[in-house]
Amino acid sequence: MPKLAYLGPEGTFTEEALRILAPEAERLPSPNVTAALEAVRRGEADGAVVPMENSLEGAITTTLDELARGESLLITAELLLPVEFSLLARPDTEIGHIKRVFTHPAAITQCRNFIARELPDAVVVAAPSTAAAAQEVALPGSPYDAAIAARIAGEHYGLVELAAGIGDRTDTVTRFVQVSRPGPLPEPTGADRTSLVVFLADDHPGALLEMLTEFSVRGVNLSRIESRPTGDGIGRYFFHFDFEGHVADARVGEAISGLHRISAKVRFLGSYPRADGLFPQIKRGTNDGDFTEAAEWLGRIRTGQV
Amino acid sequence: MPKLAYLGPEGTFTEEALRILAPEAERLPSPNVTAALEAVRRGEADGAVVPMENSLEGAITTTLDELARGESLLITAELLLPVEFSLLARPDTEIGHIKRVFTHPAAITQCRNFIARELPDAVVVAAPSTAAAAQEVALPGSPYDAAIAARIAGEHYGLVELAAGIGDRTDTVTRFVQVSRPGPLPEPTGADRTSLVVFLADDHPGALLEMLTEFSVRGVNLSRIESRPTGDGIGRYFFHFDFEGHVADARVGEAISGLHRISAKVRFLGSYPRADGLFPQIKRGTNDGDFTEAAEWLGRIRTGQV
Amino acid sequence: MPKLAYLGPEGTFTEEALRILAPEAERLPSPNVTAALEAVRRGEADGAVVPMENSLEGAITTTLDELARGESLLITAELLLPVEFSLLARPDTEIGHIKRVFTHPAAITQCRNFIARELPDAVVVAAPSTAAAAQEVALPGSPYDAAIAARIAGEHYGLVELAAGIGDRTDTVTRFVQVSRPGPLPEPTGADRTSLVVFLADDHPGALLEMLTEFSVRGVNLSRIESRPTGDGIGRYFFHFDFEGHVADARVGEAISGLHRISAKVRFLGSYPRADGLFPQIKRGTNDGDFTEAAEWLGRIRTGQV
Amino acid sequence: MPKLAYLGPEGTFTEEALRILAPEAERLPSPNVTAALEAVRRGEADGAVVPMENSLEGAITTTLDELARGESLLITAELLLPVEFSLLARPDTEIGHIKRVFTHPAAITQCRNFIARELPDAVVVAAPSTAAAAQEVALPGSPYDAAIAARIAGEHYGLVELAAGIGDRTDTVTRFVQVSRPGPLPEPTGADRTSLVVFLADDHPGALLEMLTEFSVRGVNLSRIESRPTGDGIGRYFFHFDFEGHVADARVGEAISGLHRISAKVRFLGSYPRADGLFPQIKRGTNDGDFTEAAEWLGRIRTGQV
Repeated sequence: MPKLAYLGPEGTFTEEALRILAPEAERLPSPNVTAALEAVRRGEADGAVVPMENSLEGAITTTLDELARGESLLITAELLLPVEFSLLARPDTEIGHIKRVFTHPAAITQCRNFIARELPDAVVVAAPSTAAAAQEVALPGSPYDAAIAARIAGEHYGLVELAAGIGDRTDTVTRFVQVSRPGPLPEPTGADRTSLVVFLADDHPGALLEMLTEFSVRGVNLSRIESRPTGDGIGRYFFHFDFEGHVADARVGEAISGLHRISAKVRFLGSYPRADGLFPQIKRGTNDGDFTEAAEWLGRIRTGQV
Repeated sequence: MPKLAYLGPEGTFTEEALRILAPEAERLPSPNVTAALEAVRRGEADGAVVPMENSLEGAITTTLDELARGESLLITAELLLPVEFSLLARPDTEIGHIKRVFTHPAAITQCRNFIARELPDAVVVAAPSTAAAAQEVALPGSPYDAAIAARIAGEHYGLVELAAGIGDRTDTVTRFVQVSRPGPLPEPTGADRTSLVVFLADDHPGALLEMLTEFSVRGVNLSRIESRPTGDGIGRYFFHFDFEGHVADARVGEAISGLHRISAKVRFLGSYPRADGLFPQIKRGTNDGDFTEAAEWLGRIRTGQV
Repeated sequence: MPKLAYLGPEGTFTEEALRILAPEAERLPSPNVTAALEAVRRGEADGAVVPMENSLEGAITTTLDELARGESLLITAELLLPVEFSLLARPDTEIGHIKRVFTHPAAITQCRNFIARELPDAVVVAAPSTAAAAQEVALPGSPYDAAIAARIAGEHYGLVELAAGIGDRTDTVTRFVQVSRPGPLPEPTGADRTSLVVFLADDHPGALLEMLTEFSVRGVNLSRIESRPTGDGIGRYFFHFDFEGHVADARVGEAISGLHRISAKVRFLGSYPRADGLFPQIKRGTNDGDFTEAAEWLGRIRTGQV
Repeated sequence: MPKLAYLGPEGTFTEEALRILAPEAERLPSPNVTAALEAVRRGEADGAVVPMENSLEGAITTTLDELARGESLLITAELLLPVEFSLLARPDTEIGHIKRVFTHPAAITQCRNFIARELPDAVVVAAPSTAAAAQEVALPGSPYDAAIAARIAGEHYGLVELAAGIGDRTDTVTRFVQVSRPGPLPEPTGADRTSLVVFLADDHPGALLEMLTEFSVRGVNLSRIESRPTGDGIGRYFFHFDFEGHVADARVGEAISGLHRISAKVRFLGSYPRADGLFPQIKRGTNDGDFTEAAEWLGRIRTGQV
């Protein structure tokens, strides 16, 4: 039974993601993303589940930065998890009596309408995480009357769900990834995603355009790009790319080999099945058969068999 | 005397930036970036100073998102401020007796070596901001012995600077911008930057490449690109661009008109002098004179004067 | 009644084209393309009709080179004329008795099958033009029994058409253009073509890619490109471009202004209705309304009205 | 001793080129380029030397079209030959008595100034080739007094050189190629050229830009592009490309494999040493070592060794 670290404490959305990705796994809550990934690097866990991006908040930059540095880890799976907030309280709490609410600032933002409508007089206090808020509220003598958190947090800490689905938007989603130490990659499924990080050789104008052209020439469609600072001053960035396809695909292999040639460093972060299961539209001339046929043709003409 | 809102409380790096950008201004501390910008929109302040990005932490996404939405605001100036952390304590505190330190998590990360070397046994607790940490430490009876914050925070709250420049890197920089309600733009200086936000018309593969090509064809060099979620699900992004030049420059005008034509919406965020004062290298055929001459030529051939 | 020079002598395909393009015009046969165009430049003719390209033989390089050099002329119309060859002879000639055939080498090539089948024993001799061949055959005492030429040549010189449509292909077409001295351009029709010539500023790798990008960014589709030597040694070329649209179109104007800015010289050769009458598919964001709207938007943001 | 066909008759510039390219070869004059190449295809000759382009006249389209069609042939060498015209006459002819000059039309054009200055009253008549003109002039009873041709033609036909270097430009050059039936390619020298022909899969707007991008992404510099009609109507072209490098070079191999994948057909015409011996500037990341290293890297990451 594998042991997987995750962004804890118990009751986080990340735990919920882990339960779906690896129902059988032993779960190791970690205080933050860095700790979860370090647990994998040090061998204390077989893998980890961490958030990558949220449809409202954007990239989880700690995850991006931690995957880009230190010993390499590989993403082996991803999951899209709807973010549904619940109002959680100790048993016997009535919603009309709630004076102080504890939750993560992102949840405050995302439940603004519910709070204004249902808890107009409550003070809302920022917590380090939604799960930590629930944990705190569960303590006897807590100064807080309720937490806004995932339903799973209520189950963990013995809180009652006073209201469910209280976010302003019902379509908020967080993307989680499962990572492990380097090893065999997931098999290609035809509906795969590949992630990598590129450090520029020199930060000349047009460097980004050149990178995108390496993809587009081989018909590889980007799904996400994030610039992150290298730390060496404003204006110096490295780039995270997510794109369609598996590194075993010929078009992907050639595109990222091209990136590797023109960059200071490319760190491969993994090829894994897409959570949405969508198969890409493959541009004319870029499927594996086309590459194989072209390689055979090249072999022939190089020996003068024209 | 203009009144400028800023990311408070007193003693933040943002206040330091504001004092440099507008020494004469009346200062209005705001609890967060959103509040500072809303104060401008509502007319309670004439402008605001907010952080845009940090050379270690990356973009300040709240600032990006707030500028992209709501009523338009214009960036009129930028500042690059070295981030120098100081160890601050109540008078008579000795460094050897410090047991509990309070500061923002980014400061914990950035002062890791100093803490390990000089405060190996101290407990370090996360605060909402470095200034808030200083404010708390200044309270009589505070459970914390010291704060890590900007020197200015010590001056505000009556703390003593026990150590200065304690960050692991000495070159960390934050970029701040000054914004105001729409009005006349700063004059071009030749060393300008322009910022804008682009919402895609349709999220087809190659949309980003097309946008970059609009810039590159007119010889406009990008200095920064940030993707941000639209909120409409994973995989849907809009883009922040910073690039060289002033919207009054012909090459910039044509490039962003091109972006405007192919996008759902372009929001102009301002043209303003670059903090580093660097003049761009202008690609052959793209200075204002070249555009004027080409327009005259086009006028002639359109009337058959060839 | 305008006087138009054309590639003569009487009876050429060019004369046929002229009769269609300008039925009322007075016709001035010229010994070659250079002479026809010089007649216009010197004012001896009001315009000229010359061949531009043939679907089998390709560009008529003399026309390309003459239009690129000397005083500017403007193309005002084009015509696609099917090339149909006839076997022409003096009255009373029987096909079985034809021993010597006279015609232009291109006609020899294009009627190869007919000649092999119907005139297997005939000697075929190269003539300077098909019309000149007909003219020669018409002379009493000519050593040639038949000419291969346009039917119109037979009518001119009193020859009988022994066989019609004798080309191997039935779809061969020549494109002719009518040119005049500079003056008002033909009005845009929506189905227009524009021709121009570009001399490179410096012959760096990628110069051609840059030129094509100036077109593609504005959604202007090329229909033809020809490289021609500058005369300054192997490896030095200038380029003829034909593309969709009229110079009065905003997208065309901006594209060729871009070419003008990055090139040593652009010579405009004219905008004129397409012979095939096809309307182009206009790429999103590139019609005149899009450009007007973008210019208004740019005007607003330049004055801070965002 | 190999037998090489060439564009005859004896005394052409092509013969001169052949003598330099293959001094030991047996020479087989052919009446035209088509015949010379057919002689190779049928095995009557071991190879052929034919003109490819001229710095004043441009491409020799017959050569381009013949190499693009029929059985494949391979270019194995190229030569740049200065074109120097001489005025040739039968012994005892005085220049002042020359009344009728015979030569090829290209020579008439290129010697215009000499003719106007030295032979102002002479009639100049068009000949099928400069060598044929010399051959004719050499006949006793020829109606022509002099030929303009290569010096070598005078030597062949026993004519005297009355004037040398009589072209208006002294730098006119013709590029010749030596071709043979398919077989082992010339070894890479580092200063090589590769030629090929591309037939488009579908003639969509942007097809040419896509082809050029296949080259530019791999840092392969084009030296020449020629469009030629497919024969299927005006507006349908195929393309000849000459570019730097040898098909054995990794960057060239990948670029033309890319072309092969996106095109209907690519015909390889050969890799051979450049006549000018210039070594290309190789773009960062595109030499063979870079490709080898990238392939090894790709191999490792595909097996999860990151």
